[in-house]
Amino acid sequence: MINSTQPHRVVIIGGGFGGLYAAKAFAKCANVEVTVIDKRNFHLFQPLLYQVATGTLSPADISSPLRSILSQQKNARVLMKEVVDIDAEQQAVITSESVIPYDTLIVATGVSHHYFGNDQWKESAPGLKTVEDALEIRRKIFVAFEAAEKETDPEKRKALLTFVIVGAGPTGVELAGAIADLAYSTLKHDFRTIDTRETRVMLLEGLDRVLPPFAPDLSEKAKEALTRRGVTVSTSTRVTQIEANAVTFQKGETTETIAAQTILWAAGVKASSMGRVLEQRAEASLDRVGRVMVEADLSLPKYPNIFVIGDLAHFNHHDGTPLPGVAPVAMQEGDYVARLVQARLQNRAIPGFVYRNVGSLAVIGRNDAVVDLGFIRFSGFIAWFVWIVAHIYYLIEFDNKLVVMVQWAWNYVTRKRGARLITGTELEELETKPVSEPDKSPIKV
Amino acid sequence: MINSTQPHRVVIIGGGFGGLYAAKAFAKCANVEVTVIDKRNFHLFQPLLYQVATGTLSPADISSPLRSILSQQKNARVLMKEVVDIDAEQQAVITSESVIPYDTLIVATGVSHHYFGNDQWKESAPGLKTVEDALEIRRKIFVAFEAAEKETDPEKRKALLTFVIVGAGPTGVELAGAIADLAYSTLKHDFRTIDTRETRVMLLEGLDRVLPPFAPDLSEKAKEALTRRGVTVSTSTRVTQIEANAVTFQKGETTETIAAQTILWAAGVKASSMGRVLEQRAEASLDRVGRVMVEADLSLPKYPNIFVIGDLAHFNHHDGTPLPGVAPVAMQEGDYVARLVQARLQNRAIPGFVYRNVGSLAVIGRNDAVVDLGFIRFSGFIAWFVWIVAHIYYLIEFDNKLVVMVQWAWNYVTRKRGARLITGTELEELETKPVSEPDKSPIKV
Repeated sequence: MINSTQPHRVVIIGGGFGGLYAAKAFAKCANVEVTVIDKRNFHLFQPLLYQVATGTLSPADISSPLRSILSQQKNARVLMKEVVDIDAEQQAVITSESVIPYDTLIVATGVSHHYFGNDQWKESAPGLKTVEDALEIRRKIFVAFEAAEKETDPEKRKALLTFVIVGAGPTGVELAGAIADLAYSTLKHDFRTIDTRETRVMLLEGLDRVLPPFAPDLSEKAKEALTRRGVTVSTSTRVTQIEANAVTFQKGETTETIAAQTILWAAGVKASSMGRVLEQRAEASLDRVGRVMVEADLSLPKYPNIFVIGDLAHFNHHDGTPLPGVAPVAMQEGDYVARLVQARLQNRAIPGFVYRNVGSLAVIGRNDAVVDLGFIRFSGFIAWFVWIVAHIYYLIEFDNKLVVMVQWAWNYVTRKRGARLITGTELEELETKPVSEPDKSPIKV
Repeated sequence: MINSTQPHRVVIIGGGFGGLYAAKAFAKCANVEVTVIDKRNFHLFQPLLYQVATGTLSPADISSPLRSILSQQKNARVLMKEVVDIDAEQQAVITSESVIPYDTLIVATGVSHHYFGNDQWKESAPGLKTVEDALEIRRKIFVAFEAAEKETDPEKRKALLTFVIVGAGPTGVELAGAIADLAYSTLKHDFRTIDTRETRVMLLEGLDRVLPPFAPDLSEKAKEALTRRGVTVSTSTRVTQIEANAVTFQKGETTETIAAQTILWAAGVKASSMGRVLEQRAEASLDRVGRVMVEADLSLPKYPNIFVIGDLAHFNHHDGTPLPGVAPVAMQEGDYVARLVQARLQNRAIPGFVYRNVGSLAVIGRNDAVVDLGFIRFSGFIAWFVWIVAHIYYLIEFDNKLVVMVQWAWNYVTRKRGARLITGTELEELETKPVSEPDKSPIKV
């Protein structure tokens, strides 16, 4: 790995925060040639995906074409392909149509939903990771209100107006808060038969508090804020069964089944399949959810020229717990690996990766969020304002998404939401799908 | 039809420009109860749909929830249903789940694509009427560039970079201009293997000039502007065959087959199926493309309480030709019918409908359009500016779509397009679909 006339070939799999920050960090390196491979043609600003799912933003508002982002970076190219294998010996990435050789490989393919062995729940309780997930959830939410408006049976109508979110991490809290705002504020004058304020939003969490990664006092604040907004929060609650239109959960000794047309999954993630590929091809070790155990410099123990960054990496920090799967971690890791590769090309050494904590934020709804900056914790309007500023800062830095700012300002003033389209489905489907009664037979746990 | 204590029930089928303007015109009538039935939950600002298809705007930017538009109008309700039949004798509209009685019925269900008896072309050459159409066309366009970047066979690559638009009415001209701008400007730095400036954009028209509804000198200006932008315009050209990835056309004695991955249909429209329902149930006469022949007051000859407005109506004006299927006609017709119904409720008579020509506009691309205001015709930058102002005026009047203005201003300055997502499809599909060779066998005409 010494400087030569041939450029050093860096292949990056995944155009999320980690992969893209790594690619951009090579911008000034004339001796490096970067290839970003992604199966999608755009980078997704995932922290705002819940706003697409709840009708505030459009997919394009939080997506940037990968080609457009790297358009001016002459040493970078983008390939829209799906990686199927890695040959660590021959140093090549294999797609369905081609073999792409590398000198350094950076794997940043992230995570997907995890149903803890109950993959059959996926059909009834979609999770939120992709644009398609968000549009499907948006469709489900607005179809439920439309169907309720037409429903004459009060029991069925109640089920149509019941929304259950499983998992009270940041995504679950954001979804619950946004659906409550939608039902109790945005839509309240829009229907003639139903009163959308009769909507029930339930947030179920297996652990004993919401937002478990945050400090307990912020969890308490978040729970209070959610309750104030009309969300029914139930902690220490384990979901034991999910069927179409019904969810069964256990709290202490009590087991309950709720009829709900809309059930959303925000309870767990598992590593993308590239983790398994690295295990088989590059002797990587995986943790319980399939994340790749990495060295202090984010490389694989046996292959120092293969790096894993972002949500797919399990990096042990100070206290032995892995770094959380959030954008700042991925961005800093991407930056670090780019610096390390450049140092190696100059035969320099740099110390291991250290995460600089920039704080944790979770938004609950209009004017309400929780913020933990490490040295200070706060909630309410100021926290919400910090959340807005932080997200606009990243959006602008990335792709000058001025339009999101305008959309938010507009929605804030008018309390409207513009992106409430029900698309991608025939109405017949909606009309013929019955709202089935929840199964009243004894619960199988 | 005299004033009584029971409110007069107006049922409107279709939430397009015609239906919605009619509904809104009843806002102040306490003695009228309005029901708007649409199978979608949003009104679509169709004149800008080509900007969704070519990656400038998102669907939600040009859509407004029907409920939101009529939220404050207490005498109006919205039903998301599909009408399957009309009972003119019993005065009721029939949906799959219910029967909705009316005193006055306004049918405004518009038109869809017309393949002139070649419905099998639909698969290979989609038209542009719905949000789903636009997203499918957007997907096709951007997938073609991505596939070209990976293609090594020069012939196949050429086919991938060939875009054929059939029909040079306003939609065809707008699509051709926008795709040319995309290839020759927006995307020119984004790829590494292909040069997007090698893209071929062909616009085929059966008549002897582009924009046939406009004056001949504007047609000439539009053709010049398109040619300047790199579009190959071919008039007096009849398409005789469309297959996957190939289009065959005849010009004079010459027949030619072109390999093209992307073929778009903008050649003709036919009336929606409600025309046929009215023919069977209310003795309506239809014209050649299935539009309903209406009286001077837009009602049916046999049923003075059934009105047909917008693109579905065939209204003979001064010169014997029907009014064009454009938004201003539909809006004025909606307004007129609402005024007529109110007059009837007060036992007054009003004269027949007269269309007040507000002019015709068609945009060719950045800084270029043609405008015919009747008393004056012009083209170029000033026409483009008039087009922008007119569209923003309608968007703002309708739903305060401030965000579109910001998006346009931003795109204008940066020459970028934000909505370039390829969504709703698996990559495998793209990768395994071969670019087939055009059929070289003798042409069947």
